[in-house]
Amino acid sequence: MERLNYLFGADELCVYQDTNSFLFSLDSILLPHFVTLTKKTKKILDIGTGNAVIPILLATMTDAYIKGVEIQKKSCDLANKSVIYNKLENQIEIIEDDIKHFYEITPTESFDLITCNPPYFKVDVNSHFNEKLTKTYARHEVSLNLENLMKISKKLLKNGGRISLVHRPERLVDIILLMKKNNIEPKKVMFVYPKFGKASNILLIEGVKNGNPGLKIMEPLYVYDNNNQYTKQLLEYVEIKDDNNAITKKL
Amino acid sequence: MERLNYLFGADELCVYQDTNSFLFSLDSILLPHFVTLTKKTKKILDIGTGNAVIPILLATMTDAYIKGVEIQKKSCDLANKSVIYNKLENQIEIIEDDIKHFYEITPTESFDLITCNPPYFKVDVNSHFNEKLTKTYARHEVSLNLENLMKISKKLLKNGGRISLVHRPERLVDIILLMKKNNIEPKKVMFVYPKFGKASNILLIEGVKNGNPGLKIMEPLYVYDNNNQYTKQLLEYVEIKDDNNAITKKL
Repeated sequence: MERLNYLFGADELCVYQDTNSFLFSLDSILLPHFVTLTKKTKKILDIGTGNAVIPILLATMTDAYIKGVEIQKKSCDLANKSVIYNKLENQIEIIEDDIKHFYEITPTESFDLITCNPPYFKVDVNSHFNEKLTKTYARHEVSLNLENLMKISKKLLKNGGRISLVHRPERLVDIILLMKKNNIEPKKVMFVYPKFGKASNILLIEGVKNGNPGLKIMEPLYVYDNNNQYTKQLLEYVEIKDDNNAITKKL
Repeated sequence: MERLNYLFGADELCVYQDTNSFLFSLDSILLPHFVTLTKKTKKILDIGTGNAVIPILLATMTDAYIKGVEIQKKSCDLANKSVIYNKLENQIEIIEDDIKHFYEITPTESFDLITCNPPYFKVDVNSHFNEKLTKTYARHEVSLNLENLMKISKKLLKNGGRISLVHRPERLVDIILLMKKNNIEPKKVMFVYPKFGKASNILLIEGVKNGNPGLKIMEPLYVYDNNNQYTKQLLEYVEIKDDNNAITKKL
């Protein structure tokens, strides 16, 4: 079943979702608010873009041109519908391709920023794959693992370009090792906590290609308060600060 | 000038400090509360023990035998005075030695736990050394750097033994890389924040020699509230939970 959802924190924006597929989650909402955008950010690549939540949110914050690569046709169709619905077809391009193929045909140093909400679960012999293939692709490292993601970023990022991703805190060690192996310096980390007193369950991390050492641990972000309501902090974090009426202008 | 200070969170304990030297800070108070102690923790090594704050606090939580190695005579004298003052001379041994020498003369796999509040500042040509040598030793990586610390831990820890240290968050990447290089798996991290809304300024990290991958990011710890008072959370964290009257029995 297809449905049209408002984007959390951005009432003007909607995305189409397939309820049989992997619905966008808080992770994809948080990442665009975490990334570092500068005036030099002109070309962005979103790897495994799904229904294009990340590009659509980024488009409210930057005029950069955004390519979203997605391996699954069904997701691409929804992504394109969402891009058109939000009148962003001049800024966002959805490419139906395996990122490993896209990586091979794309020139080095093509992007200023790479974003990714990658599959979380390591695939091993004990992995219980989700029955629906679409969910499996989105949740397991079938088509993309962290090692490939960093290798891809090393090639496709310009010198000083950034890779920003959302992942699980227990993979922090792997992420840091693979970033360093690919000359990407971890620069900024934010841990997201379901509520006060609990261990973190979401990791946001950004690295800079050939950047100088020095990691900043940002203030922690809490999702729910003690009454199980979204915290004021979260709502402020994901709010679209649209001082220039960028959305209104684009829509 | 010498002075006798109560230990924060442990009113029964005191340490002697030299006000010309590097006073113990919150870091040394937090670390003993962060370390994982089990029934198997029988032998502990505290590297760069200073005036023995860490061993003295650990002695309230475990019956393990604790060796504190300290390169500076003045600090060793104060440490010994503090150990005697707290009647802990049967549990804590202060060794005046360079840890690099101690490392060479000590058999492999001698300890279940290594603790360290190491020097924070990388020594390079631009380092402005503190005029007082004692402070320089304690704050700069003159006698001990992270690379040595992990190499020492690799040799001196038993299989499955732990290294627990307090450091600065911006060194997290180095610490993780050096742990992995020395077969120490980062298992537990806590970030301490000066107050809500600020970036973290203290890192607590624990690794297990030949441990399985999987890192846990503990709940964040806040030091001050909005009225610049210690938070209830901090006071509870550093409180000595002395259910068995261990302190009273020992003193």
